Amino acid sequence: MDRSGVSQRLAEAGQAHLLQFWDVLSPEEQKELHRDLKEMDFKEINGFFKSAMEISSSSKHEKMDTRMEPVPRDVLGSVTRDRDSVRDWEDAGLLCISQNKVAALLLAGGQGTRLGVSYPKGMYDVGLPSHKTLFQIQAERILKLQDLAEKKHKTKCCIPWYIMTSGRTMDSTEEFFSNHNYFGLDKEKVVFFQQGMLPAMDYNGKIILESKSKLSMAPDGNGGLYRALERQKILQKMQQRGIECIHVYCVDNILVKVADPAFIGFCVQKRADCGAKVVEKTNPTEAVGVVCKVDGHYQVVEYSEITLATAEKRSSDGRLAFNAGNVANHFFSFSFLKDIVQKYEPQLQHHVAQKKIPYVNETGAVIKPDKPNGIKMEKFVFDIFQFANTFVVYEVLREDEFSPLKNADSQESKDTPTTARHALMSLHHRWVLNAGGHFIDENGRHVPAIPSLKDGTDLPIKCEISPLVSYGGEGLEDLVKGKEFHPTLTIDESGVHQLVKNGV
Amino acid sequence: MDRSGVSQRLAEAGQAHLLQFWDVLSPEEQKELHRDLKEMDFKEINGFFKSAMEISSSSKHEKMDTRMEPVPRDVLGSVTRDRDSVRDWEDAGLLCISQNKVAALLLAGGQGTRLGVSYPKGMYDVGLPSHKTLFQIQAERILKLQDLAEKKHKTKCCIPWYIMTSGRTMDSTEEFFSNHNYFGLDKEKVVFFQQGMLPAMDYNGKIILESKSKLSMAPDGNGGLYRALERQKILQKMQQRGIECIHVYCVDNILVKVADPAFIGFCVQKRADCGAKVVEKTNPTEAVGVVCKVDGHYQVVEYSEITLATAEKRSSDGRLAFNAGNVANHFFSFSFLKDIVQKYEPQLQHHVAQKKIPYVNETGAVIKPDKPNGIKMEKFVFDIFQFANTFVVYEVLREDEFSPLKNADSQESKDTPTTARHALMSLHHRWVLNAGGHFIDENGRHVPAIPSLKDGTDLPIKCEISPLVSYGGEGLEDLVKGKEFHPTLTIDESGVHQLVKNGV
Repeated sequence: MDRSGVSQRLAEAGQAHLLQFWDVLSPEEQKELHRDLKEMDFKEINGFFKSAMEISSSSKHEKMDTRMEPVPRDVLGSVTRDRDSVRDWEDAGLLCISQNKVAALLLAGGQGTRLGVSYPKGMYDVGLPSHKTLFQIQAERILKLQDLAEKKHKTKCCIPWYIMTSGRTMDSTEEFFSNHNYFGLDKEKVVFFQQGMLPAMDYNGKIILESKSKLSMAPDGNGGLYRALERQKILQKMQQRGIECIHVYCVDNILVKVADPAFIGFCVQKRADCGAKVVEKTNPTEAVGVVCKVDGHYQVVEYSEITLATAEKRSSDGRLAFNAGNVANHFFSFSFLKDIVQKYEPQLQHHVAQKKIPYVNETGAVIKPDKPNGIKMEKFVFDIFQFANTFVVYEVLREDEFSPLKNADSQESKDTPTTARHALMSLHHRWVLNAGGHFIDENGRHVPAIPSLKDGTDLPIKCEISPLVSYGGEGLEDLVKGKEFHPTLTIDESGVHQLVKNGV
Repeated sequence: MDRSGVSQRLAEAGQAHLLQFWDVLSPEEQKELHRDLKEMDFKEINGFFKSAMEISSSSKHEKMDTRMEPVPRDVLGSVTRDRDSVRDWEDAGLLCISQNKVAALLLAGGQGTRLGVSYPKGMYDVGLPSHKTLFQIQAERILKLQDLAEKKHKTKCCIPWYIMTSGRTMDSTEEFFSNHNYFGLDKEKVVFFQQGMLPAMDYNGKIILESKSKLSMAPDGNGGLYRALERQKILQKMQQRGIECIHVYCVDNILVKVADPAFIGFCVQKRADCGAKVVEKTNPTEAVGVVCKVDGHYQVVEYSEITLATAEKRSSDGRLAFNAGNVANHFFSFSFLKDIVQKYEPQLQHHVAQKKIPYVNETGAVIKPDKPNGIKMEKFVFDIFQFANTFVVYEVLREDEFSPLKNADSQESKDTPTTARHALMSLHHRWVLNAGGHFIDENGRHVPAIPSLKDGTDLPIKCEISPLVSYGGEGLEDLVKGKEFHPTLTIDESGVHQLVKNGV
């Protein structure tokens, strides 16, 4: 073990304290710590710290208000305002898919900490009738979309799925997919890769030890994507496959339209190198980042950076001026992604997140601080918007496409398993109604299209349609038109099922 | 006791079953039952039942979609789209108030059943720092508004407050006001009156007994207002006072701007005889009634009457076509209200609400049915829109003006004490920020204008401003500008208070 080499590098980088407990460690612990340290580039990490702190403490945020401009109408495509074009866009997207030009890229490096689970979020079951996990729902949407493109264009095709995990989620994610036979996908077309990790640091730039032998490490943010694509040669694999369009999205949105053909078609028709899917922000104090221009370049401005005056600013039509709510659904052309990875990535700065980070004190005791004592450094996936030559924004309906799973169920929280489950069932309920089906209650009466939540017991109609049957509401007429259903209604590959109660 | 007279009237009306337990009742119970029956006009009630059931079973609802038209732009005033006019409207409204032409009329006949309390909703404390009840909050808004009008126009003025209770809430409401010294209002200007009650009936038109000696009675809907105004000569009192504008609203909205001068001013400037305050409905399946035209006349179409296709219909600007969400805030000119009460009220039909109504069976046992077994009949306050010659719609921001208290706290429900409390504190937080104040957290850092709800523990900033200090956010600069506050912040007549924690 070349301890002296590591020692010297640590001393030069001002991180010698990481070895302070060396002499009391077991040989095994020493070996692990040495391995961790050997792999790290302390000079680079110190550099990250220095620039991240500089940017974080600069006054740029305070001047943000005057530098922000809303998204201009001519770069915006909207499913509500440009309804006549949506079918065209969808056709264009399906064509690309049928030509094997489209890939899906899933950001799944985070752990379900806030959700209160110790496994990757994609493995979460929100309690649908089918008990499908987020991973399965997404896999089946890909399968269905391939099917739709194949049927339309009479050709075999495939949407490869690139899944970014982190050191913490890699093994369990791979195992989960393997145990479930990749949910019917071709396992060669499901590619896992890992984002990097960075140490947590105190405000003086010292790396924090979470135990005597272990550094406090965290994933480097979803913007770690670009470095990971380079290091793990994912870009090369995409190029070999002839991928031209990449749909990047986060794992936690139960309604996500993976590789959404309309979104892809819109971006392709606009010859965009980068696009962001957004939902309209209607309440000024909603905690969502907004896509806008800052100093002439597109970016996402986080809600914590905006003053109330800016958040409340309105256009002449009465809408919020900054209403393009980011939903972490992005389009990249392959050539743009290549430029990012090969040219621009080093220009991206880490953001600083102040955190309460458990640490060992001088006596080796683990302390859980009650206020922030250090930082984690993260890059954000959307920080590359600024490099796009042709950037577009695609506005969709929140109730159709966005319901993220972030928190555990509780009275105070939003974005819970319950809200996610309700959002999906509400969407599928509307699919059935729009395809000409009806629901009847236990007394045989028609249930109104808009169910009452009056007494807190009339929950949404229970209805779940397998993605293998319908990707976006299409193809249901033959199954439901003119028919009456008792909830719970489920529709899957094997047919239409209604819950039969009390043996009736 | 003239039992035979009542008996005969009952027999003639097909309601003789109401006396089926007569012989087993105590003299006291007999007396009470006799008194209840003596007062009732069974022919009229049977008539109500017949026409209500006819209308309810007619097919008019199914054709609603083709008959509905959105509110035209020229009758709409909007705080977001007509921002430049809002100040003018407010001035016009304050002038009317200063001239003693404006009255507030509170609909408070409902009991807090869904809320899980046995007393009137207005007496509910949602858990604000001040623990003020809804009644007190509204009373103080009236006091402040009088004050603003007086200061501006250098004249003494009064906004009389008419409070409609029901047989169930009258006594406790009056007592509550009396015990609280009418919250500082002139008790002569607080006028209580009662809406009528109607019996619940089974599907065959038989009045339901809730016990052997007691009819199942319920208030006759908030549209019972008009009959009550006539019967209790409230209209005369208004006329004697010279009232020209009446703001009618429901008790349960914690953000209600009682006698809102901007709303009143807008209606007066438009020479409207009737106006409805609305908030924009943005989600098609939100359970809110919408103001629209049906066969050329304005009305509120309830969400249960609309098909999904109509609910999802959009204008060319991408907004929902039927987006004028009713918030039970109405403007009436005095002359219009007089016409309604004296001419049109009898034309209003009762709506049928199917309910699970506890009843006594033939053996006298009380049965709680598990599915609807009868109906309650109600008139709706907005059913008179159709009679207006000049009807206008005034659109305000939901986050500023609408947060109703309907259900008890629970994970599944909306419109709870928690949501009401948060809505008020969020509004007051924004008032402080817009007046130039800031909040700092326990670590001395500025709290962002849009607080994060990320970990489910970062609840809204705790901030409450007494209506006696500010009616709508005005007049706070001197108190907060350039200052930093630790929540909980409360501002009342005695000054600015911050919660001091741990003796610090």
